[in-house]
Amino acid sequence: MKKAAVIMGSDSDFPVVSKAVIKLKEFGIPYEVHVMSAHRTPDVAAKFAADARKNGFGVIIAAAGMAAHLAGVLAAKTTLPVIGIPCRSSQLEGMDALLATVMMPTGIPVATVAIDGAANAAILAAEILALTDDKLAERLEKMKADMESGVAKKDEAMQNKVAELL
Amino acid sequence: MKKAAVIMGSDSDFPVVSKAVIKLKEFGIPYEVHVMSAHRTPDVAAKFAADARKNGFGVIIAAAGMAAHLAGVLAAKTTLPVIGIPCRSSQLEGMDALLATVMMPTGIPVATVAIDGAANAAILAAEILALTDDKLAERLEKMKADMESGVAKKDEAMQNKVAELL
Amino acid sequence: MKKAAVIMGSDSDFPVVSKAVIKLKEFGIPYEVHVMSAHRTPDVAAKFAADARKNGFGVIIAAAGMAAHLAGVLAAKTTLPVIGIPCRSSQLEGMDALLATVMMPTGIPVATVAIDGAANAAILAAEILALTDDKLAERLEKMKADMESGVAKKDEAMQNKVAELL
Amino acid sequence: MKKAAVIMGSDSDFPVVSKAVIKLKEFGIPYEVHVMSAHRTPDVAAKFAADARKNGFGVIIAAAGMAAHLAGVLAAKTTLPVIGIPCRSSQLEGMDALLATVMMPTGIPVATVAIDGAANAAILAAEILALTDDKLAERLEKMKADMESGVAKKDEAMQNKVAELL
Amino acid sequence: MKKAAVIMGSDSDFPVVSKAVIKLKEFGIPYEVHVMSAHRTPDVAAKFAADARKNGFGVIIAAAGMAAHLAGVLAAKTTLPVIGIPCRSSQLEGMDALLATVMMPTGIPVATVAIDGAANAAILAAEILALTDDKLAERLEKMKADMESGVAKKDEAMQNKVAELL
Amino acid sequence: MKKAAVIMGSDSDFPVVSKAVIKLKEFGIPYEVHVMSAHRTPDVAAKFAADARKNGFGVIIAAAGMAAHLAGVLAAKTTLPVIGIPCRSSQLEGMDALLATVMMPTGIPVATVAIDGAANAAILAAEILALTDDKLAERLEKMKADMESGVAKKDEAMQNKVAELL
Amino acid sequence: MKKAAVIMGSDSDFPVVSKAVIKLKEFGIPYEVHVMSAHRTPDVAAKFAADARKNGFGVIIAAAGMAAHLAGVLAAKTTLPVIGIPCRSSQLEGMDALLATVMMPTGIPVATVAIDGAANAAILAAEILALTDDKLAERLEKMKADMESGVAKKDEAMQNKVAELL
Amino acid sequence: MKKAAVIMGSDSDFPVVSKAVIKLKEFGIPYEVHVMSAHRTPDVAAKFAADARKNGFGVIIAAAGMAAHLAGVLAAKTTLPVIGIPCRSSQLEGMDALLATVMMPTGIPVATVAIDGAANAAILAAEILALTDDKLAERLEKMKADMESGVAKKDEAMQNKVAELL
Repeated sequence: MKKAAVIMGSDSDFPVVSKAVIKLKEFGIPYEVHVMSAHRTPDVAAKFAADARKNGFGVIIAAAGMAAHLAGVLAAKTTLPVIGIPCRSSQLEGMDALLATVMMPTGIPVATVAIDGAANAAILAAEILALTDDKLAERLEKMKADMESGVAKKDEAMQNKVAELL
Repeated sequence: MKKAAVIMGSDSDFPVVSKAVIKLKEFGIPYEVHVMSAHRTPDVAAKFAADARKNGFGVIIAAAGMAAHLAGVLAAKTTLPVIGIPCRSSQLEGMDALLATVMMPTGIPVATVAIDGAANAAILAAEILALTDDKLAERLEKMKADMESGVAKKDEAMQNKVAELL
Repeated sequence: MKKAAVIMGSDSDFPVVSKAVIKLKEFGIPYEVHVMSAHRTPDVAAKFAADARKNGFGVIIAAAGMAAHLAGVLAAKTTLPVIGIPCRSSQLEGMDALLATVMMPTGIPVATVAIDGAANAAILAAEILALTDDKLAERLEKMKADMESGVAKKDEAMQNKVAELL
Repeated sequence: MKKAAVIMGSDSDFPVVSKAVIKLKEFGIPYEVHVMSAHRTPDVAAKFAADARKNGFGVIIAAAGMAAHLAGVLAAKTTLPVIGIPCRSSQLEGMDALLATVMMPTGIPVATVAIDGAANAAILAAEILALTDDKLAERLEKMKADMESGVAKKDEAMQNKVAELL
Repeated sequence: MKKAAVIMGSDSDFPVVSKAVIKLKEFGIPYEVHVMSAHRTPDVAAKFAADARKNGFGVIIAAAGMAAHLAGVLAAKTTLPVIGIPCRSSQLEGMDALLATVMMPTGIPVATVAIDGAANAAILAAEILALTDDKLAERLEKMKADMESGVAKKDEAMQNKVAELL
Repeated sequence: MKKAAVIMGSDSDFPVVSKAVIKLKEFGIPYEVHVMSAHRTPDVAAKFAADARKNGFGVIIAAAGMAAHLAGVLAAKTTLPVIGIPCRSSQLEGMDALLATVMMPTGIPVATVAIDGAANAAILAAEILALTDDKLAERLEKMKADMESGVAKKDEAMQNKVAELL
Repeated sequence: MKKAAVIMGSDSDFPVVSKAVIKLKEFGIPYEVHVMSAHRTPDVAAKFAADARKNGFGVIIAAAGMAAHLAGVLAAKTTLPVIGIPCRSSQLEGMDALLATVMMPTGIPVATVAIDGAANAAILAAEILALTDDKLAERLEKMKADMESGVAKKDEAMQNKVAELL
Repeated sequence: MKKAAVIMGSDSDFPVVSKAVIKLKEFGIPYEVHVMSAHRTPDVAAKFAADARKNGFGVIIAAAGMAAHLAGVLAAKTTLPVIGIPCRSSQLEGMDALLATVMMPTGIPVATVAIDGAANAAILAAEILALTDDKLAERLEKMKADMESGVAKKDEAMQNKVAELL
């Protein structure tokens, strides 16, 4: 199976990004995790993206905050699908990172997920890689079924919570 | 090659969505285009998504405006990657559609592109399908090279425009 | 009297939603409370809404956060009035949920209350059901009178607080 | 059947509000339409709301722009359900009217629809009145079925539009 | 001297509003403080505003949060200047209260100060009343001079803080 | 009677500001109108504000767009009430001017009216000056009565418009 | 004198950017104008910035819209001051470009001017280059004096406009 | 070398502003730090800016919150480059300060950095002063190289963190 790359702009993003890594592990998707910055190590980031396809990657997940250029800068150097996670920093509730990630010009898409939506970035990566991996597709279907039964159980448990009200 | 589905919530979105269809044509990706509404034809939309994988689709593009639920509603019923295009309607500059498309809860990602970013939705679909189609990957590389030389030409032409100033 | 349904997208919304349940109890309105998700259990939600009228419901209250599709997804499958509570999650101050709940396309209204406005959702439900229940209408009038006298008492108490200033 | 009141804060809102009136006509709901202002004719508005129940109204629709207080001011004087239409004026894309209409304090709910969502206000009014009027409920079901088949027709027509592309 | 009225929509606004009261005391302006609600005690509020001029008031300060209608509702019933304090509540950073207070339609102005800007509301009231009270004008000039010398002292103190850096 | 000053940051604001001037004329309030810029003629603006009280002004109206500092800069140099009109320019719908005008720090209030709310700025000025001018107070009461009867006439006319629908 | 570089992300930004070029001409500052894209020609942009100092540039002006990464991408490769012009595109009023330009992480500043503020970008460049060029500093002082007298003339002309009112 | 001025509107901004001072120290740039207010000490601020060039300053850094006029007010009185730091206060996440700082009218630019971006303000000042100071330029290049190797080290350390996951 092709690998997923998980790139974060700063190691301070790791508490968010780790949720993506854990999901990839659960799905059995091989991955690499790196700290690279669009602004502090632009050459490293550019080279990584340019070589990603030939180095066996099938998808790149990029997480960054504020004027979040990382996903776009990687997307500029590869034709692999790039998934962007806008990270909330201390101001503006993550709106800056969301707009800087999603509003890409024609020609260079970034597949943007929710602010701090790291788990969903990994699930989206799995959906992409599952197009040629039936085992992975089955795992996704199972996750979906588990979510469904999980909600059903919570609905049951809710009946007790409601009974205890007042 | 797997097909791309292009679903729009209203035929009034077609001027935007047609840019995705044209791009898919240019890439030689087989596609189907449909008008389906998360709110007016929820069963049709749910069934389409549920059957999409077995019907030969590899990716679904969904375009909607306002409280844009279409991409999320489709993503709820499939484990194929779903790409969301938030469409600008007459109020709020498309911010409503952007937030309603991108801020998905854990478990159900939508790969969101820019407001009215239909061409990029198709390019992202191509990037996904190109993971197992080297010809398509080459076409993407060529598009990228063409963009690059296009900018170079515009840079040349700019020199004349600047000379004409004042 | 017809029943009120209170549906929440996630049991993590219960601290907010419980205020609606308590109000319904106070009004003596029969109710059911459920956890159902527009994205994780779309079929359960759709079936619930489709059967709600014949199952004796008169109004549906739906609470969800982020790209809050729950109220809209339920409204798509019923002609009962659906009241939407946009729940604030950890980002964007609830603006995402507000826009995803209120900006519904023509044909499928959602009666939206304030962000986290669960008590008001129940009061609105009571106002709707009171159209054919004079007792309930009287209880609403009494609540309004109590609020009025409550403010008058607070105005009195305020005089002491002000006197203590400085 | 109980009447619907349609109140607008300024006659300049009529191009939007007229869509609500037309819908009410189509549903066969008796109605009255008035221009009343929370700020210019506060006593008239207060008296109208206070007497609305005894004057045979079952629901009040209120449309206003900017610091849109009309729906709230009416809701303060009645326990009938009040539906608010935030109208877009020349600034701020209607966000001012949306927040001034929907963010009501506990005790005084306003059932808010989308910015300029006048048709939906009337449909919501119909859903409320249909709780005790089976004919009206049938008309709502029919409207829903018509919308559904309308989308199906547009999906068919779309196939031609797509074929004509390029 | 004419009195200043300080009206708050809820006693929970008192921690903010008390800053206005303290400023009025410091200026020696006679005042009354009341809890009145645009929505819960609309008649009390309307009567207070209607009688304010003849009851010896020269200016009304109104503080409210969320869909903050209080200042507008008072302004509708008086031709005295009404000063609005938009109060921040638990959502939306006070933007809802700001827009609901400031975006008044032509004919009914509200003199809006900053979110939670209670002290400034009192200073503005003093500026208004000082037009016919030279003593009060002098006190305002003194406050301004004190602020100026206060900043000069802080500038001096800053030199030490800076010296201690590193 | 004391004079009103109407200051605009740029003569391009005149189409908006002229509405204030016309209102002042209608009220019979003496006025001066000036173009002064917080940024281009800061000394002229500062001197004007510093001398305003002794030059017979009772209130200053200041209109500016974008990073609208004019009202604040004038307020810094006077203890007269300063009314700010945030003007909408070509970007951001006037939100920049609104925040730059209203969010003043403690000590220097600006009485802010709605975006482009020039007529209301003049009415507010009239309300302030009317505190010591009973004739002016009567004119304000008359304006309010005229608005009230104007709405009543529009309500009548609306009945015809509604009858013509469909 | 050192040169100013004016880089735009797309030639469609030229109507805005040309105002910067004209200002540079007026100031007699040598300049080069280029079309380079952070996403379409990342290597060209990176090389330009990396070589800018040794190629005789003293300041770089970068203009881009949407997820405006250009200024940041250039700043990543140079220690010259980089001035960013956020350009308004068809959505979101330029807020996306503003946030993507200004919210840079520590270490890589971008000197951001107003949305579409191209003339100011050139004036800021002149202010920077004038630190070692007294002639240029004089030209800036003259521009400032001209602006001042220009406002004075507009103030005069305004007196006629006001006289013509009504 | 020319000096950098660091001006803050209130000493409460010092926790943010101190980061700029520390950076200036590290770069060996001579500096002065002052508390001056656009609103409370406008004359002091104006005089400081007017004399800054002749007093040996090469750049002015100005930090302020809310309706942040300080940078603009200083820029109005000097042709030195003025760098603005919008400071986040207790409301609106710093958006008010950002817009009040960056949206300057033509003729008076403010080089705006990120909300609370004090370190970047100092780095930008260093970039400006380095145009004529090769030693300072070298220090900037070294800082950039250090950042780059810092990220590389964090990338190494990340491998351990990732290995410890699960």
